[in-house]
Amino acid sequence: MKKSLGILGGMGPLATVDLFRQIVTLTEAACDNDHIRIYIDNNSRIPDRTAAILSGGPDPVPEMLDALRHLEACGADLVIMPCNTAHYFLPRLQAQTVLPILSMPDITAAACARRYHGKTAAILATRGTLATGIYDRALQQAAVPFLLPTPAEQDALMRVIYQGVKAGEPPATYRRDLETVTAALAARGADYFILGCTELPLAVQLLGLRVPAVNPTEELAKAAIEACGYRVKKLA
Amino acid sequence: MKKSLGILGGMGPLATVDLFRQIVTLTEAACDNDHIRIYIDNNSRIPDRTAAILSGGPDPVPEMLDALRHLEACGADLVIMPCNTAHYFLPRLQAQTVLPILSMPDITAAACARRYHGKTAAILATRGTLATGIYDRALQQAAVPFLLPTPAEQDALMRVIYQGVKAGEPPATYRRDLETVTAALAARGADYFILGCTELPLAVQLLGLRVPAVNPTEELAKAAIEACGYRVKKLA
Repeated sequence: MKKSLGILGGMGPLATVDLFRQIVTLTEAACDNDHIRIYIDNNSRIPDRTAAILSGGPDPVPEMLDALRHLEACGADLVIMPCNTAHYFLPRLQAQTVLPILSMPDITAAACARRYHGKTAAILATRGTLATGIYDRALQQAAVPFLLPTPAEQDALMRVIYQGVKAGEPPATYRRDLETVTAALAARGADYFILGCTELPLAVQLLGLRVPAVNPTEELAKAAIEACGYRVKKLA
Repeated sequence: MKKSLGILGGMGPLATVDLFRQIVTLTEAACDNDHIRIYIDNNSRIPDRTAAILSGGPDPVPEMLDALRHLEACGADLVIMPCNTAHYFLPRLQAQTVLPILSMPDITAAACARRYHGKTAAILATRGTLATGIYDRALQQAAVPFLLPTPAEQDALMRVIYQGVKAGEPPATYRRDLETVTAALAARGADYFILGCTELPLAVQLLGLRVPAVNPTEELAKAAIEACGYRVKKLA
């Protein structure tokens, strides 16, 4: 039985485009009709998740629920969200809907356990995501050993994400920060990296860094395709 | 007053991703909350539009209406569609909704008149789109002079679109066909080209062709941004 997919989007809009693109390009399909029916509410009114968690900003849950009601009205069978930090609010959302909401950190942790069994992950993410502990808990539950960045390394990652990628600066301006952080974590025993912020896969790609990595957006896209009863395309 | 946008998508899924991406990247915005609220129904069940027009395939309008009802239920203020050929069915859809549906051929014709005043356009499109005459009528109403490909040139364009881009073949395999068609049309008086099939901007980009062109998806994205009360980003 094929299922339809709801994307609770707008967090942010470009990350929503990227998740949608990955689902479409990773679905095994020979024509339009072989694809998943996908409903998207790109709700640009959802307040900043990091500000809500770290500095008492407005609660994002009411606008997230508003989008969830639209996805329910369309008839979505299951729901995903493109924002790592937003998953801090998943239990509050899940309590108010019968639709299953797939968890990006849980799916990422399962992918880590499968692909890098027994190896040590390093979590690369914003200060907001790290403060919630959502990846720590998911990795612990999946019995995946992991390392966290030090405060100085967190500062460097924030520079890469905010002053580098989000600001559209040339990759050369943030190469040293990202290479320093990954080298230091590798020296402390990290075998691979969880790119736990939607800007980080872009940074790694733009810099042409050759580090073993897990991309949560891609793992979520693949898990959603399979949960909807479709097949993930085998890439050459 | 800011308006929200509905995308009647799935025709095809990748063209839907591309239209969504163009709207997000072309909107003047400093943060997530500056973006347009967008609802998408990527309805992969809509039957092939070209087959319905040219060879008596199933009528796509019932599934298009199903998606339209979802966009209405979400609260969209206006609607757009990423498929050129689908616009043949626009009058039947518009008769069944109070939501305005922006017309990609009309918006493209207006852009042609504005950007290439008095110059002659050549319409590059699939045989299905050309058979409907939707671009001919839009250009005539906007008083834009235009040329159509000959039957042999239409065959060459179909090879570029179906056996080239859609099949994922290397650009070198369709360079000669596309260059031959554009050169022949230019020799007959075309000053610029309407890339009236979502595969053609991709072909032009992959081949690095330097021809003056109007991209209907991009024009639709810009018109939708303005119709929603937002501003189009000034590109450097």
